[in-house]
Amino acid sequence: MRSFNKIEENDISFFTQVCGEGNVLIGDEISEDFGRDEMTPESMRVMPEVLVTVDQANQVSRLLEYATQKRIPVTPRGQGTGLVMGSVAVHGGLMLDLSKMDGILELDRENLTLTVEPGALIMDIRAFAEAHDLFYPPMPGEQSASIGGNISTNAGGMKAVKYGVTRDYVRGLEVVLPTGEILQLGGKVAKNSSGYSLKDLIIGSEGTLAIVTKAILRLVPNPACTVSLLVPYPDALSAIRAVPILLQGKIMPVAVEFMEGDVIVAAERYLGKKFPDHSAEAYLLLSLDGRSKDDVERDYEHIATTCLHTGAIDVFISDTQERQDAIWSARGAFLEGIKAMTTEMDECDVVVPISKIVEFLEEKQALEQQSSLRIRSFAHAGDGNLHVYILKDDIDDATWEKQLHLVMSALYRKARDLGGKVSGEHGIGFMKREFLEQSAGAKAVSLMRGIKRVFDPEGILNPGKVC
Amino acid sequence: MRSFNKIEENDISFFTQVCGEGNVLIGDEISEDFGRDEMTPESMRVMPEVLVTVDQANQVSRLLEYATQKRIPVTPRGQGTGLVMGSVAVHGGLMLDLSKMDGILELDRENLTLTVEPGALIMDIRAFAEAHDLFYPPMPGEQSASIGGNISTNAGGMKAVKYGVTRDYVRGLEVVLPTGEILQLGGKVAKNSSGYSLKDLIIGSEGTLAIVTKAILRLVPNPACTVSLLVPYPDALSAIRAVPILLQGKIMPVAVEFMEGDVIVAAERYLGKKFPDHSAEAYLLLSLDGRSKDDVERDYEHIATTCLHTGAIDVFISDTQERQDAIWSARGAFLEGIKAMTTEMDECDVVVPISKIVEFLEEKQALEQQSSLRIRSFAHAGDGNLHVYILKDDIDDATWEKQLHLVMSALYRKARDLGGKVSGEHGIGFMKREFLEQSAGAKAVSLMRGIKRVFDPEGILNPGKVC
Repeated sequence: MRSFNKIEENDISFFTQVCGEGNVLIGDEISEDFGRDEMTPESMRVMPEVLVTVDQANQVSRLLEYATQKRIPVTPRGQGTGLVMGSVAVHGGLMLDLSKMDGILELDRENLTLTVEPGALIMDIRAFAEAHDLFYPPMPGEQSASIGGNISTNAGGMKAVKYGVTRDYVRGLEVVLPTGEILQLGGKVAKNSSGYSLKDLIIGSEGTLAIVTKAILRLVPNPACTVSLLVPYPDALSAIRAVPILLQGKIMPVAVEFMEGDVIVAAERYLGKKFPDHSAEAYLLLSLDGRSKDDVERDYEHIATTCLHTGAIDVFISDTQERQDAIWSARGAFLEGIKAMTTEMDECDVVVPISKIVEFLEEKQALEQQSSLRIRSFAHAGDGNLHVYILKDDIDDATWEKQLHLVMSALYRKARDLGGKVSGEHGIGFMKREFLEQSAGAKAVSLMRGIKRVFDPEGILNPGKVC
Repeated sequence: MRSFNKIEENDISFFTQVCGEGNVLIGDEISEDFGRDEMTPESMRVMPEVLVTVDQANQVSRLLEYATQKRIPVTPRGQGTGLVMGSVAVHGGLMLDLSKMDGILELDRENLTLTVEPGALIMDIRAFAEAHDLFYPPMPGEQSASIGGNISTNAGGMKAVKYGVTRDYVRGLEVVLPTGEILQLGGKVAKNSSGYSLKDLIIGSEGTLAIVTKAILRLVPNPACTVSLLVPYPDALSAIRAVPILLQGKIMPVAVEFMEGDVIVAAERYLGKKFPDHSAEAYLLLSLDGRSKDDVERDYEHIATTCLHTGAIDVFISDTQERQDAIWSARGAFLEGIKAMTTEMDECDVVVPISKIVEFLEEKQALEQQSSLRIRSFAHAGDGNLHVYILKDDIDDATWEKQLHLVMSALYRKARDLGGKVSGEHGIGFMKREFLEQSAGAKAVSLMRGIKRVFDPEGILNPGKVC
């Protein structure tokens, strides 16, 4: 591991000179929130030495150039909604708070692009687009995440089945390299074959190669009509078995979510609101959209019939905005609902081929029985991305550590054997590095490390993450 | 420039041992075709020293490992349909002919993927998918190109407006590194956030980082109905001005091609077949698809009305397969048609924001007048990707070289000023390196070179290309 320098008085003077007095916090002035993300165990919290709030690329540039010269570790931070400690300053040093760089800078109607700063929230970007009758499709469960974070992890979310992931909606990036140089990658262009795609390399690199200071997003026409179908099944496996059948037809659903009854109950409890139904063991939640009510009606009749043919108990159709909001806000609260069920937990964000979800869930069930740990899960079933949560409950620390590692290792091994990957959308961060190396192999990780050295020879940018 | 070793007798023995007697050709045994691509000027042809036909990844692996040890340059070759000398062995050495690795290996209906070898032709992949009522959308003008080449240049083609480019349809790759190691990148998964996207780095890297030996492609449902609209406009600029207006509506056309009357005439002459109309100065050719005839009819009525509002002279609708094939095969013959008009030519494959195509074409017109060179063009107008051809005709070599460089430089400079890129889909290859450096900037190119060294420390793989 590289040795970094501690931040000293004269460093703080420099940060203050660049960003202004009120934007540089040290020691106890820094809120404890900046020492963790949404899933950091108590025992692993690490505070940055200094927290600097930046509001323009030029400041980021000056700070990174300085940090490279002085060998000070730098951790970029958006909303801190990650789950793998990607935005925690595990080596201390300087944390760059980008949340104030939250401008929505330009809507370009002719090129159908939206230029934003990295701190802009997903919910605000989506609302802004919709107010202009346009659509930004990526919809992670955590709508209060920042676009910078979503780009850094190539977040996918619920609408990836039809619309794809964040990568598919990033036309261009402005990034600051660890040397302080500012690069424009891509642009308002729909095609590009002009050398290696540095833009695609930055997307998903979790802030370890460069810091995104601007993004040009692609928008699409806003679908006029959306309908959701909540479909109860007698058990988890019969619900999951229906998924590839639903996706083989001519109708491409926007979303196909899988959820278990007790996770719904947990979300109801967390929100204090009722879901339309929670009596079944398992559900699929589908969403369809289209240009007219007639189109979507025809589609959902067809999909509903297919659901019933695949063993569904019933099909509840939600075609008003209000009812859909109720369902999807409950869906958005699953993570919080599960967190509220237990004392501490860790998650596994694997993605597997759609045809292999059943096998993966069978393994999960077997592990739950063997380990005596509670395991809860929900899944973006339409794209094979599962979120599996292992709950600590009241188990003692030593047993928990041991059992957790056994279960996690078994889950990741199973995913790899099924042709899956360690992370579908949450990234590797600090927590999943061991599993990345096992899954991707030593050679792929060594190429990643080589690329890291090309961008960041001093290793100052988000050290200890990914590879 | 690095110094390479010439191939000697014992090297040839090794190649023969790995690939078999009939698969190793030397000197005059090698057809002259392997010394050029579709646009290599006579004066720039370079023959490889040895041409080896491979038929499995394991052979590629052994040859690359050997070539790295012996410092022998290796040029991968598919169908040789490129336009920038990406598949020409500019340093001599070993050429790997991958065209016999053309298997379509597996259709996976549950995961909607098609696994193919790199030599499989785009036309065969598309036909195979359609025979199974599925659809592989990327449709470059050159349908006899290989998928390996399309992946290497991130080819886009005509249907990118609605469906995106090759990158969007590559789920996984098997690649052989210059060291001989074989890596599996991505897979049958729809999301991935597991370290840097090496897969996306390989896509568009023009065979300079690794050789693709297998690809897992994503397929989508086959649209039941497709219609094409040929729309004459009084002049080029009024046709182009209509494009952003057409794209701002709720209907996303599959393709929006721009063409000039005399390019159509040239294609007619080349094919010996008539186009439905060639009397106007300029045309848009639109394609629409959908799940039913009714849906598409409603869409094209709306689009046709918009065309007439934007100054179109008429709208010819082609709704039979036969008439559409006639139009699109003529469209596919544009490049050959223009080639047949002149003695020699060079092309410029810029991509600009859609809103800037008019300005770019105005510059092209001005340059044509100033330079006294004939310039012909057509464009994937719906995605801003223009193909501009500068014709030598009967100009003497010295004047041609000088004028060509002036015009090319001016075109690329204009594209850059408009926020465009050097290449939309044909790549950089050997011919456009100067313009890549000018456009992307020294720092971006130096990062690319750093990445190149990580993958290929001895620089043996497709040397002299891209960066």
